[in-house]
Amino acid sequence: MDSIVVVGSVALDSVRTLWGESKEALGGSAVYFSLAARHFARVSVVGVIGKDFPKEHRHMLAEKGIDLGGLKELPGKTFRWVGKFGKDLSDAKTLATHLNVFAKFRPRLTSAQKKSRVVFLANIDPDLQSQVLNQMSGPALVACDTMNYWITSKPEALRRLLSRVNIFFVNEEEAKILSRQPTALAAARVISHWGPKVVVVKKGEHGALMKVDNQFYAFPAYPVESVKDPTGAGDTFAGGFMGYLTAAGDYGDVVHLKRAMLYGTALASFNVEDFSTRRLENLRRSCLEDRFAEFCDALQVPHNGSAIKPRVLFSR
Amino acid sequence: MDSIVVVGSVALDSVRTLWGESKEALGGSAVYFSLAARHFARVSVVGVIGKDFPKEHRHMLAEKGIDLGGLKELPGKTFRWVGKFGKDLSDAKTLATHLNVFAKFRPRLTSAQKKSRVVFLANIDPDLQSQVLNQMSGPALVACDTMNYWITSKPEALRRLLSRVNIFFVNEEEAKILSRQPTALAAARVISHWGPKVVVVKKGEHGALMKVDNQFYAFPAYPVESVKDPTGAGDTFAGGFMGYLTAAGDYGDVVHLKRAMLYGTALASFNVEDFSTRRLENLRRSCLEDRFAEFCDALQVPHNGSAIKPRVLFSR
Repeated sequence: MDSIVVVGSVALDSVRTLWGESKEALGGSAVYFSLAARHFARVSVVGVIGKDFPKEHRHMLAEKGIDLGGLKELPGKTFRWVGKFGKDLSDAKTLATHLNVFAKFRPRLTSAQKKSRVVFLANIDPDLQSQVLNQMSGPALVACDTMNYWITSKPEALRRLLSRVNIFFVNEEEAKILSRQPTALAAARVISHWGPKVVVVKKGEHGALMKVDNQFYAFPAYPVESVKDPTGAGDTFAGGFMGYLTAAGDYGDVVHLKRAMLYGTALASFNVEDFSTRRLENLRRSCLEDRFAEFCDALQVPHNGSAIKPRVLFSR
Repeated sequence: MDSIVVVGSVALDSVRTLWGESKEALGGSAVYFSLAARHFARVSVVGVIGKDFPKEHRHMLAEKGIDLGGLKELPGKTFRWVGKFGKDLSDAKTLATHLNVFAKFRPRLTSAQKKSRVVFLANIDPDLQSQVLNQMSGPALVACDTMNYWITSKPEALRRLLSRVNIFFVNEEEAKILSRQPTALAAARVISHWGPKVVVVKKGEHGALMKVDNQFYAFPAYPVESVKDPTGAGDTFAGGFMGYLTAAGDYGDVVHLKRAMLYGTALASFNVEDFSTRRLENLRRSCLEDRFAEFCDALQVPHNGSAIKPRVLFSR
């Protein structure tokens, strides 16, 4: 049974949006990823928390089947992020970042984690991301994310990492900066030459674009009427994507990659419906499958065997 | 044989983008719409030009099968628009607008046009749009577009018009302003209560959202690697949409509406590949069909009968 190792942050987030706020609520890339991926595969976290990390979060995650054997507790406080979103939900404004124990994060994998065949390296220092790979005994599928900060401060380390990565998740703006290209498509093309066979450009409320071989696949976001809190949407998307692929056991087939895109999209659409991880925590697999199937159907446009053929043709 | 009447501008545009520029080139909403819709139906233009309108444009349009019997020549100069696009291709910056003869535009339909069963009212004064409908003997399908200027200066006239419209095309930002709603979905819901059974929210490079009955259908834009000039993309989209629906002869079927979305999207993607109407002028029907079919396929994600079932289920 394939499992996924995820390396990333475990945090307490305080977020304000036009629709309300949450204070010191569960967050972090590894948490959002795990809560999404758990629907498809066993997830094992590599992360760090402080002495103040609430016991109930640990219990909730363990209850969802998420392996916390690699979640290390250090003296000090848990990583905290304070942010807000205005009308433009794609634009998170960071009000404060307290790294706390996260500043001392040196990922160390358990012996079981080292043998995992699938790994997701959430947004951390690219040198640390590479050190995770160095500890593993040849994973079959390596995926990662990153952020502006590393793109500008450690471009060489990031390029070294990308040469070892199969699937790269990146925000649209960050993809353009990293590749020095004006469009998401050109950016994906350039980045794919550096290593990743699959480049997924995340566009927030506008969906995502995937480059595989020489093809581009654009998908919209699932239409959600009331977005309360976009925090964690990108990591939730990656969790659904990687979880599905792990269960499918094959990332060479574009049908699986397209399904992965839509499972990621569906999970992200649930996540934004409430603050923190609330909606993900109580999300049933059947609800996920219903939305996934509905979304597949909505996107399906039969182009052949149509009942009505256009009757008038003026052009050649 | 159903034909479409389109009422709108015929213009000479000067456009600068990061990839080049065009000067005094053919443009205008009625022109872009016609060049897209002609692939599916006979199109008949209601518009106005000045004495200086180049003969070769008239010839080109007539050669494409577009009926110019309702294109009136008035003393004076043709409508001119001067604009530029920066890095953000969704943000047209108007440098100059010379209405010229367009300021005196009072649409008067020919007797054949009055009997047309399909009409597209491109972005003009909503009172003029209503006057066009008053001249017609009960069209089966009425569609319109509008812009910020009318939304703020003539909101009541626009509301009166919308109560007589079946399909409303509107930009995302304009939809939000018109409806005073924060999201495209909420905007479409509110506007649909004012009359239009179908509301199509155009999102430029991010695709389009369609509301039909109580369902939302989001589609991405067709991924284009080199966008040279986005001018006219919205009217080209509407032309493909309305042209296909006219040929299909049915706008009550959501499959036809979805196909209309993708034909509109495909046509718009060709249009932005070159300046002015260049790409649309020489676009073959077979190229359009190829891109349409390719796009349908790319969006198709089979959700049932899949070869591989997820093997691990932790959640309920």
